[in-house]
Amino acid sequence: MTVRRYLVLAPGHFADDAKTAHGVIRYGRDEIAAVVDPSCAGRSVRDVVPYLECDAPVVASVTEGLAQRPTALLIGTAPVGGALPPAWRSSVLDAIAAGLEIVSGLHEMLGDDAEFAEAAERSGVRITDLRKPPATPVFTGAAYGVAAPVLLAVGNDCQVGKMTVVLELARAAARAGVRAEFVPTGQTGIAIAGWGIAIDRVISDFASGASEQLVCEAARRNPDLIFVEGQGAINHPAYAPVTLALMYGCAPDALLLVCDPVREKLEGFDARTMGYRELIRLHEAILAPVKPAAVVGIALRTRGLDDSAAWAEIERARAETLLPADDVVRNGPDHLFGQIRPAVVKRQPAHATVTA
Amino acid sequence: MTVRRYLVLAPGHFADDAKTAHGVIRYGRDEIAAVVDPSCAGRSVRDVVPYLECDAPVVASVTEGLAQRPTALLIGTAPVGGALPPAWRSSVLDAIAAGLEIVSGLHEMLGDDAEFAEAAERSGVRITDLRKPPATPVFTGAAYGVAAPVLLAVGNDCQVGKMTVVLELARAAARAGVRAEFVPTGQTGIAIAGWGIAIDRVISDFASGASEQLVCEAARRNPDLIFVEGQGAINHPAYAPVTLALMYGCAPDALLLVCDPVREKLEGFDARTMGYRELIRLHEAILAPVKPAAVVGIALRTRGLDDSAAWAEIERARAETLLPADDVVRNGPDHLFGQIRPAVVKRQPAHATVTA
Repeated sequence: MTVRRYLVLAPGHFADDAKTAHGVIRYGRDEIAAVVDPSCAGRSVRDVVPYLECDAPVVASVTEGLAQRPTALLIGTAPVGGALPPAWRSSVLDAIAAGLEIVSGLHEMLGDDAEFAEAAERSGVRITDLRKPPATPVFTGAAYGVAAPVLLAVGNDCQVGKMTVVLELARAAARAGVRAEFVPTGQTGIAIAGWGIAIDRVISDFASGASEQLVCEAARRNPDLIFVEGQGAINHPAYAPVTLALMYGCAPDALLLVCDPVREKLEGFDARTMGYRELIRLHEAILAPVKPAAVVGIALRTRGLDDSAAWAEIERARAETLLPADDVVRNGPDHLFGQIRPAVVKRQPAHATVTA
Repeated sequence: MTVRRYLVLAPGHFADDAKTAHGVIRYGRDEIAAVVDPSCAGRSVRDVVPYLECDAPVVASVTEGLAQRPTALLIGTAPVGGALPPAWRSSVLDAIAAGLEIVSGLHEMLGDDAEFAEAAERSGVRITDLRKPPATPVFTGAAYGVAAPVLLAVGNDCQVGKMTVVLELARAAARAGVRAEFVPTGQTGIAIAGWGIAIDRVISDFASGASEQLVCEAARRNPDLIFVEGQGAINHPAYAPVTLALMYGCAPDALLLVCDPVREKLEGFDARTMGYRELIRLHEAILAPVKPAAVVGIALRTRGLDDSAAWAEIERARAETLLPADDVVRNGPDHLFGQIRPAVVKRQPAHATVTA
């Protein structure tokens, strides 16, 4: 696959909530030419978000960014509802006019936008909508026949770092000589790995089936382990159906619980998050009648806490659940991977098989 | 809304699994001109399926059915995956050529089929795809503000009669002077009621939001009660995401459990169905952290059992759960409605409200 050189569009959002931009910069194989965000222009990416470990410049506009010789414009945010902010249209048109490919993970399909499509045709550039799902069948049960153990990330809310944890653990696995396949299930994971399906974009009746297809595709590469990026949260009123599609469709052998330990309310709702034991009980109860799987570890997002507060939260998670717990960004993923490895290398027998 | 006069297409399926045909014939407001099924042509609908209480003829072909002066052709089945059986194409084209509107609840959008679309334009007829969902927002929490109590049907599997139970209870409510609004969530319910959204066709990220929109639309008619048609089953690996979208999106105050008491395996899967107490526990556990709601009664589908076996199953459900239980088709819905009424007239306070 061609390596792109990205101009990353995230005006006003890069420092705080440009989830797609951050994921692609930290974990992707593509080059980063520059980030477009007037609110922090003139600094470097590393200076604005040190964790990304990237020295590309932040610039004020697409036009200014062209000096960095990008080959593609990446829409760097994933707003609720997934529409392109109207103020960003002119930036997209500038990029098309400059001959850049447009890469977008929005729900709104930029390739279906008449003005963009016409401009792209005129400039001979491609519009790549990462979230456009392929046609997939309904769930068939083929996932029950996958040979490698499947580990699925679930969480106490959206935006707690499920994808990051899975990517870090896959790196730890590689260092330990375990061939782990990362399965992307959302637009950022797809932008990073270059394949995958955005399950949240799939028609509900086919969401389990699409999840199954992803696991089966990963299995065809004969990995030792399959790590599936999670989505949403099982008690999030808006996004739980996507979470459940992954829980049933991927037929996981084990779950990894990813939590922000200090978050008290669900993203966007005045509804409480659940405690560790309550989360473990509910996830395991839902899987039990179909194909049982246990939570085998807890990954915490302690960003924003000082070292002693972070350690206190990690200790609390261990004490409450008697499971391995760690922050794989703060402390590196090798220790947690080593701890959960014995529990995930065994493929569980499925209760359910297909009769039809 | 115009009343249609339907020619119902269900070749080879009418007697057994033409769920859409049966629902529309028994509960719809449209007229039935004839049913097309060569395997039982020459008999009457009542003779083939007595429960439908309809004297329209069954005919061998669309051409033969034209003598009954239909105004529309209804695709009468809902196959897994939702594609039109290729052998049916010529019947659809015959109907279009004869000037009939085409009404379909398939996943496959007949209006997007080039051959059908062109034929329809030539004949000046409309193709109505019932399952095509409108654009809906993500879940907002507006459902928490609905004044009328919301009762949602859930079940121990697909195809256990959830829609039928809700329609029968809505009739019982009307007889008892309670203004109950039926909320259609699938293609047959939409064909019956003339509004609604097929939740299984909605993009996953918006499925809870679409469910919420339906409840809010029903609430605008100021009913005393809102009865929501259920979909799928919470432990069905293929369809559970749709079930969960309704459970969170409709913000129900109470659940009605609809079960086939003798079904041991899930439709199409070698996976066991759950028992009554296990089902109640799991549904209530899933709702508890968001907006708690209890199962208030059990509707059984005892079709195929003799009277004494049916009563034994009803008694077993009552004894195991201490809840009201009955078969509303076999025994009529008034008794069960009277029993669950006190439990559903009280609107539960929501835990969750919107902050964003």
